[in-house]
Amino acid sequence: MDIIRIGLLGLGNVGSGVMNILRQNINKIREYAGVHIEIEKVLVRDINKPRDIVFDEQLLTTNPQDILDNPDIDIVVELIGGIEPAFSYIKQAMVNGKHVVTANKAVIATYCKELFELADKNNVEIRFEGSVGGGIPLIDTITNKLAGNQIDELVGIINGTTNYILSRMSREGMSFEAALKKAQQKGYAEADPSSDIEGQDAIYKLAILAAISFGLHVSPQDIPCEGITRISEHEIRYAEEIGYAVKLLATARNRDGKLEIHVHPSLIPNHHPLAAVHDEFNALFIKGNAVGELMLYGKGAGSMPTGSAVIGDILDIIKMMRQSAKTGSSFVSNGEKLKVVGEESGSYYIRLQVVDKPGVLGIITTTLGKHDISIASVAQQGMGQELVPVIFITHEVEREKLDRGLDEIRKLSHVVGEVACILRVESY
Amino acid sequence: MDIIRIGLLGLGNVGSGVMNILRQNINKIREYAGVHIEIEKVLVRDINKPRDIVFDEQLLTTNPQDILDNPDIDIVVELIGGIEPAFSYIKQAMVNGKHVVTANKAVIATYCKELFELADKNNVEIRFEGSVGGGIPLIDTITNKLAGNQIDELVGIINGTTNYILSRMSREGMSFEAALKKAQQKGYAEADPSSDIEGQDAIYKLAILAAISFGLHVSPQDIPCEGITRISEHEIRYAEEIGYAVKLLATARNRDGKLEIHVHPSLIPNHHPLAAVHDEFNALFIKGNAVGELMLYGKGAGSMPTGSAVIGDILDIIKMMRQSAKTGSSFVSNGEKLKVVGEESGSYYIRLQVVDKPGVLGIITTTLGKHDISIASVAQQGMGQELVPVIFITHEVEREKLDRGLDEIRKLSHVVGEVACILRVESY
Repeated sequence: MDIIRIGLLGLGNVGSGVMNILRQNINKIREYAGVHIEIEKVLVRDINKPRDIVFDEQLLTTNPQDILDNPDIDIVVELIGGIEPAFSYIKQAMVNGKHVVTANKAVIATYCKELFELADKNNVEIRFEGSVGGGIPLIDTITNKLAGNQIDELVGIINGTTNYILSRMSREGMSFEAALKKAQQKGYAEADPSSDIEGQDAIYKLAILAAISFGLHVSPQDIPCEGITRISEHEIRYAEEIGYAVKLLATARNRDGKLEIHVHPSLIPNHHPLAAVHDEFNALFIKGNAVGELMLYGKGAGSMPTGSAVIGDILDIIKMMRQSAKTGSSFVSNGEKLKVVGEESGSYYIRLQVVDKPGVLGIITTTLGKHDISIASVAQQGMGQELVPVIFITHEVEREKLDRGLDEIRKLSHVVGEVACILRVESY
Repeated sequence: MDIIRIGLLGLGNVGSGVMNILRQNINKIREYAGVHIEIEKVLVRDINKPRDIVFDEQLLTTNPQDILDNPDIDIVVELIGGIEPAFSYIKQAMVNGKHVVTANKAVIATYCKELFELADKNNVEIRFEGSVGGGIPLIDTITNKLAGNQIDELVGIINGTTNYILSRMSREGMSFEAALKKAQQKGYAEADPSSDIEGQDAIYKLAILAAISFGLHVSPQDIPCEGITRISEHEIRYAEEIGYAVKLLATARNRDGKLEIHVHPSLIPNHHPLAAVHDEFNALFIKGNAVGELMLYGKGAGSMPTGSAVIGDILDIIKMMRQSAKTGSSFVSNGEKLKVVGEESGSYYIRLQVVDKPGVLGIITTTLGKHDISIASVAQQGMGQELVPVIFITHEVEREKLDRGLDEIRKLSHVVGEVACILRVESY
C-alpha cells in the first residue's frame, strides 16, 4: 500500500482532533483511502509543552521549513489560525508543489482569490471545509453537490458563541452579561470574546460562503456587520411574544443581480427551521434554483468536529491524487462484524382504552411490571366515558418483552378495552 | 472544449427536471465541468406523448439499445424507477463501460452490493444521490465527507408523503384519511399511496443509507417496518400535550456491534431539530464519532430537487473522468456581474421607549410615514411607568430611509426617550 505523508502546522485544539481521529478511525480511513496516511512532521511553538495526546515526540519540530521544504510531504495541513505566518506558509507549501488543507477562516476570507489562483498555477489542491461550520460539509455541498444550481440565498447561524449566548438569554431569561459569562465558563467563548460577539468571526465565514456561492470575493471589511452586544433579554422576550426567535444571522442574497450581504441580529419566525437551532450549534439555510430549500446543521466548532472536516478534506485530496473513488469502497469491512437486530429495544408510548374505575391503573402496572416493563410516566386523559385513554411512556425495554406484556394486557378484557396505539419514543 | 455525452433512460418527473436544469443553468454547469454536456439520446415509452419541455424530438427513442450499446455515450442516467427493466439496463450499461447515475431506490436498496462490485469490475462509476432525500446530499456526505468518522446512528424523516400527512394532522387537527386526501390533491401522495404510508418507500431508503453508513447490506424485507395508517389525530394531540411530535422515523444505530434498524412512527421531543421538519420536507440526523451531531434538511422529492442531485452526480463523475476539480473553478464568472450592496432593505423590528400618554403613537407613525416607512404591526408593552416600550414591525423598507426616519424620531425628545433596539425581521 502506498503512503501519503502529511505535514501538520499547529497542534492546538483542531490539530489534536485530527491526530485523535486518525488514531481512532484509522482502519476505516485506510480502507477508504486505499493508502497509509502518515503524519510526517508537526510544527509546534514549544516542543516541551505537556500534551494530552500520545505520539512519537520525534515528529515535533519548531522549524516550519522541516515541513514546507520537505520533499517527502504530500499534503500540508495548516491549523495555526490568524493571517500570518499562516498565509505565507500556505503559499510556500503550494509553490513547493504540496496540496494544502486549512481550517483558517481569516486567511481564506481575506485571500481566497489569490490562493485559488496560486493553487491552479501550481497544479495543487487547496481545501478549507473546516474554515466554516466546523464539521458541517458546507463548502463541499455548495461547491460540488449544488454545482448544477444557481445559488439564490444563504442565511446562516454560523457563530456558535453568539448562538449559545442568545439561547441562554431566551431559555433561561439571562442577561447578555450573565450568558456571556456562562459561555466563557463552558469554553464556548474566549477570554476576549469580541471577535465572536461583535460579529467579526461570522463576517469571515460569510465572506467565504459568498465567494464559493456567488463567485465573487467580498472583502470582510466591506460587509455590514452588527454583533449581539446590544441585545437585551427584553428584546428576546418581546420577539417571543410575537412569534419570533432572535438569532445572529449571516445573510447573502442575490436579488436581481444585486448581492445583499450582511451580518445582523434578526428576528426569525418560530416555525422556520433556523429558529430550532439552539445552543452552540450552527446551521446554514441555502436556496438554490433547482434544489429549493436546503439546511445543514451541526457543530460549528470544536476539536473533533473541525478535525472531521479536515480529515474529509485530506481524503478528498488523496482521492484526487489517486483518482480512486470507486463506490465499492463504501463497503468497508467493519460492517461484517455488525449483527443486524432490527428493532431490539426502546422506550415506548402506549395508549390503552380502559374502564374508568378505581384500581384499573394498579392492575395494568402490575401486569406490565411482571414483564419487566417499567413505567416512566402515565397520564389519564378525559373522564366520564365508558372507556378512557390512559397513556404510558415506558423506560427502555426490549420490544419482545413489551409485546409479551401487552399480550397479557389484552387478556384483561374486564378492564382494558383496547391497546389502541404503540409508538416508539426517541429521546435525546 | 470536450464533449461528454449522456443517455437518459426515462423522461418522467425527474428526467424533465434534469433537462430543465441543464438548460437553465448551462453556463454555470459548463464552467464547473470544463466540458460541454450533451444529452445524446432519451429513452421513452411513447415518442408522441405531449410533453411540457422543449427539445429536439430527434433525441427520443423507444429502443434502449440506442443508449446502452451506443459507443458515443459516456454516462447513462437511469430514471425509469422500479426493479425491472431498470436493473438490467444499469448492468448492461456498466458492462459496456459506461458510468451510471440513477435515482432508483428500489434497485439500489435491493442490489447495491452486486452493482458496486460490477462497477469496480468494469472500472466505471455508479452514483445514486437522488435515490434518497431528493436534492439533499446525504449519500455524498456520509460516503465521502464523513469518511473519517465511524457512523454511530442515523435517524431520519425520509418520506415526504407521510411527513406531509402527519403535519396536516398535527397543525390542522385533520384525521389521517382527510390528510391523505389533501396530500393526494397536492400531488404529494400517489393515487395508490400504500408504498409511502405503509413505510415501504422509507425502508428502501433506509437500506441504502445503512449500507453506505455501516458497510452492511440489509435486505429491505428484513427491516422491521410500521407505517402511519394506524396513527389517529388523538395520538398526535396526546403526544403534543406531553411535549412530543409524532414522526415516521427511519432509524439505524450501531449499539455495541449490533445494528438496530427499523422504520416506525415515533415520538420525538419538541426541542429536537427533527421535530421542526414539517410538511413534505425530509431530514436526516447523523451521529458520527468525530463530527458529533449533524442534520441535513431539504426537499426529499420533486422534479427539480431530485434533478439537482442527478446533475451533481453527473458532474462528480465528469470530475473523476477528467481529474479536474481545481478549487479555482468555484469562481465562476457570473459573480462578476453581481453588484455588492451590503444591507439594502428589509423588514425591521424597532423598539422605542416612549412617554406613556395619548397621541404619542400618532406622532411617531406620522414621522415614520413621512420617510416612507410603512408599519406592519405595532405593540405597546407594559404601562404605568414613565417610559414604556413600543414595538414596531415595518414593511420592507430601504435601510437608508429607515435610518433617516429614526434620526428624526430621536429628535422628538418630548415624547421619545430612546430608540432602544433595531433588529432585522426575516420572514419566509
